[in-house]
Amino acid sequence: MKIYGKNCINEALRAKAKLDKVFLLDTNQKKDINIIDQLNKNSIQYEIINKKKMESLFGLNTQGYAAYRQDYKILGEDDLNNFINSSRILILDGIMDPHNLGAILRTVDAFGVDLVILPKNRSVSVNETVAHVSTGAIEHTNIMYVNSLLNICNKLKGMGFWICGTDAKGNILSSNIDKDLKLAVIIGSEGFGMSKTLVNASDYLISIPMVGHVNSLNASVSAAIVMYDLMKKGE
Amino acid sequence: MKIYGKNCINEALRAKAKLDKVFLLDTNQKKDINIIDQLNKNSIQYEIINKKKMESLFGLNTQGYAAYRQDYKILGEDDLNNFINSSRILILDGIMDPHNLGAILRTVDAFGVDLVILPKNRSVSVNETVAHVSTGAIEHTNIMYVNSLLNICNKLKGMGFWICGTDAKGNILSSNIDKDLKLAVIIGSEGFGMSKTLVNASDYLISIPMVGHVNSLNASVSAAIVMYDLMKKGE
Repeated sequence: MKIYGKNCINEALRAKAKLDKVFLLDTNQKKDINIIDQLNKNSIQYEIINKKKMESLFGLNTQGYAAYRQDYKILGEDDLNNFINSSRILILDGIMDPHNLGAILRTVDAFGVDLVILPKNRSVSVNETVAHVSTGAIEHTNIMYVNSLLNICNKLKGMGFWICGTDAKGNILSSNIDKDLKLAVIIGSEGFGMSKTLVNASDYLISIPMVGHVNSLNASVSAAIVMYDLMKKGE
Repeated sequence: MKIYGKNCINEALRAKAKLDKVFLLDTNQKKDINIIDQLNKNSIQYEIINKKKMESLFGLNTQGYAAYRQDYKILGEDDLNNFINSSRILILDGIMDPHNLGAILRTVDAFGVDLVILPKNRSVSVNETVAHVSTGAIEHTNIMYVNSLLNICNKLKGMGFWICGTDAKGNILSSNIDKDLKLAVIIGSEGFGMSKTLVNASDYLISIPMVGHVNSLNASVSAAIVMYDLMKKGE
C-alpha cells in the first residue's frame, strides 16, 4: 500500500516496517540527510523524485515523503487471547470516516490503549488516509477486525474485562470509573451512536457532560476524552 | 456562502440564520416533512432538486440538505470588550486544517466556551468544510479574527483573564487549574505547536500526559481535552 507524510515515513522506519521503496522529494534531499543515512543503513531502496512525479504518485499531502509499504498487520479474533493481560481496549462500533479513525489511532497510541477492535462489515478500512492522519501512530497500534462485536464483548467479559459503552443517556462519568479494572470502551458511529445490542451488553454506560446547542461530539473527540480520563490509572 | 449537511441546515434554521435559498433532495422530501413546514412558516425560498443537480452544486456530502447562507458573522478586535464577563475563551495559534477547526467549533459549543480567537494571516478561514464538520455548531459560536495574538493576550490579561498555553514542555495539568479563574486557552498549530512569544506570554503552560511512541495529539483532540477539564467549573 501507499503511505505518505514525514511522520508516517519516519514512524515506519522506526518501527522497522517492511518498505518496498521510499520516495523523497528532490528539494528535501539536502534538508534531511538523516533519512538518507537511515535508508542506506537499512538497505531500503529509494528514489529521489520531483514535485510533479510525487503529486502524481501520492497526491498533494506528502510533505515530500512517501513509500510503498507492506500492508499493515491486521489481527483476527484468534489473536484476542494475547490481550489477556491488557487493561485498556477500544471498540469502534461503525466508524466510517478515515479522518476519525486516523485521529483515534493517534490518541490510542498516546494514551496507552493496547488494542482497537472494529467490525469487519461496518467500518472504514485501514487505508492511506487513516495512516496519514494518524501521523504514523498506526505503526504502534494493534488493530483487529471481527465479525460480531457482541460476540467479542462476551469473550472480553470472560477474560475479565468490564464493557464501558458511551451514550448521551449514560449514567456515569468516565472519571468515576475504577481505573484498576480491565476496561473495554465502546465508541459509537458518527451518525448513529452505539447499536442497541451493545448498549445492553455494557456494564457501564459513560456520558460526557455537555452544555451546548448541538449536544454531541465528534467520535474522535469522544474517544479521546474517555481514553484520557481512563488513562490516569492508579492516580 | 454554501452550507450543506442535515445538521448544518437544521442548526441554521434553529439559529434563524439568513438563508437565501434552501435545496432539498427529491428523495428526502417525503421523509422530512418537518423541514418543509419550517421553511414555509419562515418564508424561506426552497427548491427540490435531484441527486445530480445536488452533487453538481454542493458536492457529495450533503445528505440531501444544502443552502445558500449569508456569511457567518465574524467578530473583530473591537468586540473583545463584550466578553468581559466571559470565563472561557479559546485562542487558536495557526490552525490550518478545516477539519480541525470544524471539530473544535463543535467542542467549543459542547463545553461552553464563549469565544474563539484566530490570527487573520495564519488560519484557515471559516469555509463550508468548517461549517459541515462542525455539524452546525458554528451557528452558536463566536469567532473573532485579529491581527496579533500577542496583543490580544495582553488585552485579555487586562480584562482579568489568565492565559493558559499548551505545550509538551508544560508543567501543569489542566485538571489542576483553578476553575473559578477566567481562562483563555491557547492551542498551537498542527505542525509547529504554539509560537514562542505566546509561550512566553502564558501564565500557565498546560501539558497533557502521554505514554505512546508518537507523543503528540491532533490539535482538535488537545483542544477538546483541555476544554473538557476546564469546563468542570465549581466541581
